Amino acid sequence: MLHLHHLQNSRSFRIVWLLEELGLDYQLTTHERNASFLAPKSLTEKSPMGKAPILEVDGKPMMESAHIMDYLMAKYDTEYRLHPKTNADDPTWLNYDFWLHFAESSAMPPLLIRMIFNKIVERSPFFVKPITKGIQTQIETSYLNQTIASSFHLMESHLQDNQWFAGKDFSAVDIQMHFVVAAAHARSPFNPSQYANLLNWLHRLESRPAFEQAVKRGGRLQF
Amino acid sequence: MLHLHHLQNSRSFRIVWLLEELGLDYQLTTHERNASFLAPKSLTEKSPMGKAPILEVDGKPMMESAHIMDYLMAKYDTEYRLHPKTNADDPTWLNYDFWLHFAESSAMPPLLIRMIFNKIVERSPFFVKPITKGIQTQIETSYLNQTIASSFHLMESHLQDNQWFAGKDFSAVDIQMHFVVAAAHARSPFNPSQYANLLNWLHRLESRPAFEQAVKRGGRLQF
Repeated sequence: MLHLHHLQNSRSFRIVWLLEELGLDYQLTTHERNASFLAPKSLTEKSPMGKAPILEVDGKPMMESAHIMDYLMAKYDTEYRLHPKTNADDPTWLNYDFWLHFAESSAMPPLLIRMIFNKIVERSPFFVKPITKGIQTQIETSYLNQTIASSFHLMESHLQDNQWFAGKDFSAVDIQMHFVVAAAHARSPFNPSQYANLLNWLHRLESRPAFEQAVKRGGRLQF
Repeated sequence: MLHLHHLQNSRSFRIVWLLEELGLDYQLTTHERNASFLAPKSLTEKSPMGKAPILEVDGKPMMESAHIMDYLMAKYDTEYRLHPKTNADDPTWLNYDFWLHFAESSAMPPLLIRMIFNKIVERSPFFVKPITKGIQTQIETSYLNQTIASSFHLMESHLQDNQWFAGKDFSAVDIQMHFVVAAAHARSPFNPSQYANLLNWLHRLESRPAFEQAVKRGGRLQF
């Protein structure tokens, strides 16, 4: 028995989508965001970190999107339709495994930090704004701009040679990467002349029937 | 042919250590940190993101510590001494896979954000300090304190019932978690009455001969 706790506009959309790709039966509870950065109480009651997604498997909570994806793949994708078999000599597996980790370990943290600084500046009273803007500019030039640009260039150039992140076929890692790319694109749209491959991939990805189904059940991501 | 590019006092210590645990031959190049947040030029020349670790396998650069670990396990740990076989019904595999992702996706980002705000306050001229301290206090109370505390409580309570992160045996995921725990402990030492299991684990972990060997080759981590 699978019961997914989904938080609106969050990474847990990935799991709604993957469950739809797998065609599995599951119960879905959608939780609402509150105004703070913190998890709503309804989620902390389910699991100590209070972070979505939480997948309850026979009543036992499982956390961390990539881990839940690995679990669902190992348990239900036994014919390797949506993920490659572990094989250190197979470029498809190497790609899959690399991007699976890259999404949250390298790509997301600077985007999160950028979002935090945007909020700080936005919420600063007018007499403090010159100072917070100054700090923001400093962190953008010393760290964020270059790190974020390198990470999206890496994706773009990978998709120059590969139709999907793992290689020639769609796989679960495209879902893992989707949240990262969609979040960045929503906040600051990619220039089509610079990111044609990434935009094409995004379009192909969001044309999948299981994506549409996930939007129906979990709501469209709004950043 | 394995050639590891290691950056002093960084996550790449994990790979030095894992290579020592595996008893593999490898070439080691240690790069020096510069004053900024950004990667030194010697690393950006090796790989587009310029982030350590970079493991060159027959001249081809591989990035992302967890991915490199997965690669080394798949390629060289074929008897499953240092990682469990993928099995969605095995609690050891579930633990291993969960903590492998948790380390960088959930535990590290708030620690990184805390470090950035500490630096901002530290570097603020005296007339700006009250403002930057005020922002720091706000982000600590609204987000960091609770998120970081939950994440370390989760580790502590897991180690109450498990000798190591995967379960009863040491595995590569303990190395993945080491950097996170050691970094947090170095900056703000754990209270032994609250974090006895975590401190015992850290002590057991750092008593391993391969850890000592890694310190000899890669230098002791200093935060």
